[in-house]
Amino acid sequence: MELNLKAGSPGGGMSAWKVVLLLVGVQCLHVVALKSQLFTRGDALDYSSRKAVDYKTFYLNQKIDHFGFFENGTFKQRYLVADQHWHQAGGPILFYTGNEGDITWFCNNTGFMWQVAEELGAMLVFAEHRYYGDSMPFGPDSYSDSKHLNYLSSEQALADFAVLIRELKGSWPGARSSAVIAVGGSYGGMLAAWLRMKYPSAVVGALAASAPIWQFPGMVPCGDFHRIVSQDFASSGPNCDVNIRRSWGAIDKIASTAEGLAWLSGTFSLCAPLKSRPDSVAFKEWLQETWVNLAMVDYPYEASFLQPLPAWPVQAVCRHLGFDSSVSDYQLLQGVSEAARVYYNHTGATACLNTSSTATGSLGFLGWYYQACTEMVMPLCTDGVQDMFEPQAWDFQAFSDECQALFGVRPRASWAETLYGGKDLSAHSNIIFSNGGLDPWSGGGVTRNISDSVVAIVIPQGAHHLDLRYDNERDPPAVRGARALEVDYFKAWVRQARRAP
Amino acid sequence: MELNLKAGSPGGGMSAWKVVLLLVGVQCLHVVALKSQLFTRGDALDYSSRKAVDYKTFYLNQKIDHFGFFENGTFKQRYLVADQHWHQAGGPILFYTGNEGDITWFCNNTGFMWQVAEELGAMLVFAEHRYYGDSMPFGPDSYSDSKHLNYLSSEQALADFAVLIRELKGSWPGARSSAVIAVGGSYGGMLAAWLRMKYPSAVVGALAASAPIWQFPGMVPCGDFHRIVSQDFASSGPNCDVNIRRSWGAIDKIASTAEGLAWLSGTFSLCAPLKSRPDSVAFKEWLQETWVNLAMVDYPYEASFLQPLPAWPVQAVCRHLGFDSSVSDYQLLQGVSEAARVYYNHTGATACLNTSSTATGSLGFLGWYYQACTEMVMPLCTDGVQDMFEPQAWDFQAFSDECQALFGVRPRASWAETLYGGKDLSAHSNIIFSNGGLDPWSGGGVTRNISDSVVAIVIPQGAHHLDLRYDNERDPPAVRGARALEVDYFKAWVRQARRAP
Repeated sequence: MELNLKAGSPGGGMSAWKVVLLLVGVQCLHVVALKSQLFTRGDALDYSSRKAVDYKTFYLNQKIDHFGFFENGTFKQRYLVADQHWHQAGGPILFYTGNEGDITWFCNNTGFMWQVAEELGAMLVFAEHRYYGDSMPFGPDSYSDSKHLNYLSSEQALADFAVLIRELKGSWPGARSSAVIAVGGSYGGMLAAWLRMKYPSAVVGALAASAPIWQFPGMVPCGDFHRIVSQDFASSGPNCDVNIRRSWGAIDKIASTAEGLAWLSGTFSLCAPLKSRPDSVAFKEWLQETWVNLAMVDYPYEASFLQPLPAWPVQAVCRHLGFDSSVSDYQLLQGVSEAARVYYNHTGATACLNTSSTATGSLGFLGWYYQACTEMVMPLCTDGVQDMFEPQAWDFQAFSDECQALFGVRPRASWAETLYGGKDLSAHSNIIFSNGGLDPWSGGGVTRNISDSVVAIVIPQGAHHLDLRYDNERDPPAVRGARALEVDYFKAWVRQARRAP
Repeated sequence: MELNLKAGSPGGGMSAWKVVLLLVGVQCLHVVALKSQLFTRGDALDYSSRKAVDYKTFYLNQKIDHFGFFENGTFKQRYLVADQHWHQAGGPILFYTGNEGDITWFCNNTGFMWQVAEELGAMLVFAEHRYYGDSMPFGPDSYSDSKHLNYLSSEQALADFAVLIRELKGSWPGARSSAVIAVGGSYGGMLAAWLRMKYPSAVVGALAASAPIWQFPGMVPCGDFHRIVSQDFASSGPNCDVNIRRSWGAIDKIASTAEGLAWLSGTFSLCAPLKSRPDSVAFKEWLQETWVNLAMVDYPYEASFLQPLPAWPVQAVCRHLGFDSSVSDYQLLQGVSEAARVYYNHTGATACLNTSSTATGSLGFLGWYYQACTEMVMPLCTDGVQDMFEPQAWDFQAFSDECQALFGVRPRASWAETLYGGKDLSAHSNIIFSNGGLDPWSGGGVTRNISDSVVAIVIPQGAHHLDLRYDNERDPPAVRGARALEVDYFKAWVRQARRAP
């Protein structure tokens, strides 16, 4: 992917790298949504101690284009249903609004839904997002070009969900009068909120966990995201953010010579030694992404991410970064290398660190890149003052040029705001926005109550959608309270729906 | 248009005619929306006594496809602005959501908006609907085939409106904090309601006049429309509906011979004499449409429709249809011919009656046909018992086949319900649904309060969106009250918007 981006850059050199950074920034949501949701929620370690999830797989014929009639083809949207606890006709349905990945992973790993199903007597439905997993509108050609990618959008995905809900209510015995509640995390949480906003007759309410629906141009400062990352590090150990901020210059200095590049490659046990200045720029990007990812999955217990991580991994990282200002650049970067190993080699089994190892499946990434290059325009920037990163402005034009080169499309900066209403949520109802204080995406989330029924739940010690994970004995009290409150809202929405005429 | 329909019918014969009837039925909304809104609201007679409206014309570059990025072209959407009474920054904006016709006609003829602008200190904006008037996405090729027609939909039109409102707020001096209120009648009323439902941050409320948003499959009985037409006739003169019901059989009997066809042609002064049985079927369709149109424009004062009409035209029609059961078929049809002349020859200047004369501009008709053939699927039917027409079932399959033959597209019967929420409006707010008791489209309208802020106003003696017309000394008190109440709601919404954070 990064190779494509570089190759596709018209300008080359630093401007291309800037765009890579921007995409890496955008990718963070993806990284979270795909990596963390796919790999960390109720991960393999936790998961072995749980009851196996048991669901049936179905497919629904969906229109490839809900909004036009010239393309009249259909594709099979996959969805999973678990109705073990759904004992009564009209019982509620928790409907996971799938994000950019294989829906079986979301199903297997959204422990919260499985844990509350019995109490609510709820059916669980997990609906796959088009162009991901097994739900390909044009089969293997779906990603072949921008013509085939044309139907990959949040609007089409929401329409899929609304059609599926209608279909379920019409065909599933006993479901006709069921109250449906949308649940999602990260981009899936945005979809859950938007489903309630755009199709309120389809769902009686929505739990939007760690959903940065305000991370669009002009709504929140583009620097908030990395500021929150930096705060996590600042509060996880003395001088931790200061030393990371200092590390970039130290890398530049040392990377300015061939010997320095060799020293860095050796110290970080890089699989592919650094050969040039561009290599060292990519190396810094990789480190930046590492710190961002760590902030997002700063969970209070051991969990398996892309790599297994210790409890409170940012604290573990910061234990290697407690230097005072007298430390040399070499000592500092030695510490940084130990810190990076917390993320990449917690088990001690990693032979070398791979600076291009963040991708987990190019398809999912490619889809999210396309979405970022069209409507999901999420500005991120750094200033090196409020945050611990190198200054990097948000450059929409450069981003747009990259998108044009890569996909032949240009993003529409203000469309998401026009479509989804921006910061004005006053006309909506029955949406919970939950956010973790440690999660950088909370900067683009809704963290204050909008009304009696559009409410915010903030989990101060929570990372990215901690509330959607299986519970854990090391969970902070705030996330236990958040889950209980969420279930209370669910029950209230179901009662409200039953009272309705 | 009808020729096309007949030519395009795969089956020919009666089944083709049935579909023509269905389209004629669907067309009624169009007829109303185009003919009555264009030609009767504040018509030429009334209009001469009014201040000339004064507006400026603008064009906004709009994406041809808001929902996809492969087609990245733009077109110029026309909109008209009148700001004579908009004296203060932040003053409200009344935004007419244009329906299927030339926006200058709506602008010139929506007297209500012009009459309340001063009291509200409001700017008036009239936004043209894409594919109508001067707003052609592909210029003269816009209607060339289903590929070019692909972007004609209510969703795209709503997106145009939302983008235009954003643009106005961003660029019109003083408009940034203006509360925008959507106003529309007929299909334009549906768009006004849907704009509030789908883009509530764009408009603080909506007046949806005579908007049959429930005239979709499964929401209201398909026979309600013609039942209301028939009630109008039943209450406008003794035996009026009975004699129209009887007329169909009388026509069939007389039309069964060549002499009878000649007699009918002479008695009705038809420009094109009836030659065959299919001609007489078309003749009955034309009469049915005539009665339907009369019910829709049954206004209490003289007004110019397609033809100038007297006050309470249905009463005038019924004065020719007061026969008792002893009347002969010939006497009966002589009366029907006089009744038809009320509609087609009120001035006495019409040399002959043209049974294909209902179209006012093929472009507008063609566009609405396309919309009916895609998402605006509005079942209409007759049973000859509750209504005064020949029994005609709603046949979706035949309709779909006609659409396929005509445009190469098939309608999606349930899409409008999924998209716009069907009868469940409980999550919405700040919408007025006004309906006239004489208007057949009120059968598909919202005529009861849904909540404190989604309210119905019924004008018992009102025809199609009477409330949007200029006031008249012969207006029934109910429509005066309706207009006053509508203005009260507007003011409340503006106050509410100013209070909002």
